[in-house]
Amino acid sequence: MLLHEKADQAEALLAETGLGCWLTFARETELHPDPGVDLVVGANVVRTSAFLFGGGGERVAIVANFDTSAIQAKGVFREVVGYDEDIRGPLLDALRRLDPKSVGLNYSTDDQTADGLTHGHWLLLQDLLRGTPYLDRLTSAAPLLTRLRGRKTPTEVARVRRAVAVTEQVVELLTPHIRPGVSERDLAAVVHTRFAELGVPPAWAAEGCPIVNTGPASDLGHSYPSAELRVEPGHLVHVDLGVRRDGYCSDLQRMWYVRRPGETAPPADVQRAFDAVVRAIDAGAAALRPGVPGFEVDAAARRVVVAAGYPEFKHGLGHGLGRAVHDGGTMLGPRWPCYGRNPEAAVEAGNVFTLELGVPTPAGVVGLEEDVLVTATGCEFLSSRQRELVLV
Amino acid sequence: MLLHEKADQAEALLAETGLGCWLTFARETELHPDPGVDLVVGANVVRTSAFLFGGGGERVAIVANFDTSAIQAKGVFREVVGYDEDIRGPLLDALRRLDPKSVGLNYSTDDQTADGLTHGHWLLLQDLLRGTPYLDRLTSAAPLLTRLRGRKTPTEVARVRRAVAVTEQVVELLTPHIRPGVSERDLAAVVHTRFAELGVPPAWAAEGCPIVNTGPASDLGHSYPSAELRVEPGHLVHVDLGVRRDGYCSDLQRMWYVRRPGETAPPADVQRAFDAVVRAIDAGAAALRPGVPGFEVDAAARRVVVAAGYPEFKHGLGHGLGRAVHDGGTMLGPRWPCYGRNPEAAVEAGNVFTLELGVPTPAGVVGLEEDVLVTATGCEFLSSRQRELVLV
Repeated sequence: MLLHEKADQAEALLAETGLGCWLTFARETELHPDPGVDLVVGANVVRTSAFLFGGGGERVAIVANFDTSAIQAKGVFREVVGYDEDIRGPLLDALRRLDPKSVGLNYSTDDQTADGLTHGHWLLLQDLLRGTPYLDRLTSAAPLLTRLRGRKTPTEVARVRRAVAVTEQVVELLTPHIRPGVSERDLAAVVHTRFAELGVPPAWAAEGCPIVNTGPASDLGHSYPSAELRVEPGHLVHVDLGVRRDGYCSDLQRMWYVRRPGETAPPADVQRAFDAVVRAIDAGAAALRPGVPGFEVDAAARRVVVAAGYPEFKHGLGHGLGRAVHDGGTMLGPRWPCYGRNPEAAVEAGNVFTLELGVPTPAGVVGLEEDVLVTATGCEFLSSRQRELVLV
Repeated sequence: MLLHEKADQAEALLAETGLGCWLTFARETELHPDPGVDLVVGANVVRTSAFLFGGGGERVAIVANFDTSAIQAKGVFREVVGYDEDIRGPLLDALRRLDPKSVGLNYSTDDQTADGLTHGHWLLLQDLLRGTPYLDRLTSAAPLLTRLRGRKTPTEVARVRRAVAVTEQVVELLTPHIRPGVSERDLAAVVHTRFAELGVPPAWAAEGCPIVNTGPASDLGHSYPSAELRVEPGHLVHVDLGVRRDGYCSDLQRMWYVRRPGETAPPADVQRAFDAVVRAIDAGAAALRPGVPGFEVDAAARRVVVAAGYPEFKHGLGHGLGRAVHDGGTMLGPRWPCYGRNPEAAVEAGNVFTLELGVPTPAGVVGLEEDVLVTATGCEFLSSRQRELVLV
């Protein structure tokens, strides 16, 4: 069971990262998803709850009495303590028994997927621990959480792989619908119908998943498909889409070229741009292996684009992919302030990343995105790479 | 458009609460839902973003360039500033122009629905504002957010009403399936099928929505329906369920009694317990009006239950209901530490609450839950009250 796999991984990471204990301190998790709850608890809680992993193998959950049976049913926590009115007593009792030298909490300035603790709940924890020695032992559990989330187990990789496979099926079913006259919004509707038929929700909010761009007038970025913009001969059609399957995401960008009368191939400038994007992904993939800092992988791809005379893409080459479509951890991106320290973190075996970039052309944007798994020595593509423009 | 209704309400609340400005500071909102983004932004963002409401009617959004078009499409923010690498410049620029005497942020120790800012992102904001006068002007926006969320507009009330109506339809369709031999899990499956047919997702995670309890051996609280426990003659059957419709939730508990051979009515002890629960809800509703602190409403119902000789229920009489099934704000609950200061907050017109409680009997739990709207002088039931046990 995946929940137990991740819990065992967390236990091993406690020793590796030198944390005294790991404390997921959460409430109303339907409203406030927390990475700890997501990865090792597996059930929602309502009242303030504490989930402790101790250095000696202790696993203690402290939750409201009406939440105990759901936590017990998951079988991760050896001890499930219920309370009615106040968590303070059982929480301090558990901390006294574990007496950890440090207490790692789920917050991070850099990795948003290690940042589940809300500021109000952090203030509440300060109140609860006032006058105890544990107040000064609070620290960030990000070193543990980032690895726990980033190092995918075989079960997790298999789930991403299946999410990618069903997405590729949707892309294939979309091709016959791409023809002059259909609007971006029409194409998005086709994708939504296929998602529903295949029983997979979009990986991000449906309003903007898929992103569809036809021709040079289309708005790039996280925009909504237009009802006015219609496919025309001479357009590049670009789709960015992903699904969630068994809790894991895919994220792909695919391209079509709609021929003008008499054309048998894309115009030279379009083909040249497409080839540059493919080669940039090649370069990123060639640089991707355990131990390399994220920014170096980004730089390898960025150099190809710049050398080919295109403007730099205004985002990182790749982000983590997993339970979230932006799964946090190491960022394959430039050292811009907006990425914090994530581009300096090292790539690890078991990480899953996107490799994605785009360049502009007079026919519209060329953008491709592939999903890859980091292996012991390099990387493996989880997606069937697009190496040729699909001609319509 | 609801988004604009809420934005106008927020603008009025800035003056009412005396905040200099309201700053929703969020990132990766697919992963970290934020009440400000939810109520007045209406689109997700990826990179660190700032949404400012100023005391002079200013509305400024600062988001990554690839997120600007989605924010502009919503039309709430008069100024949408894009950035690529670093939010610091445009953020400080906006603050200098507004020069607010205080900057309200989305955190609260008490109200979890006013607590969207993560601790890591709060630390990041501290870094960004270091060396500016705004660092010392940061405060909690909870006084604004709790009212903004709690005072439902007519559009919002209409949505809750429709969510309640469809839930009552599901309850009606469930009745013919309640008969000896069916398991709790069978009944949950019927509810899930009806949800799907009616196109409404469950209001909380499907695994525990509905909660189904048959007979005295069933596990109470937020438990999962059992495949082993089956309906028997002499059982009370209890279902706790809700749906989400147009973004708003319902939350109801309904009851059936399965007669033994020859029985024409429930046993006296069951009927007595049922009547006590109905009267407790009567008493809560009678006490519910603007200006009353939440704990007084809870106490009115609790007194009825205790006077009838039943144990006190181990939760509050009622919680806010709206975009979240536990919608935060004033709590109709006892002054227990787990509820923070929420039970001391005053009820306001436009609030929507549940009124819910249960008592044990030898035939199983009796639990009822209704949904009510606070009016200028009292309250109105949004649900069709259950005043009689449904006999099977």
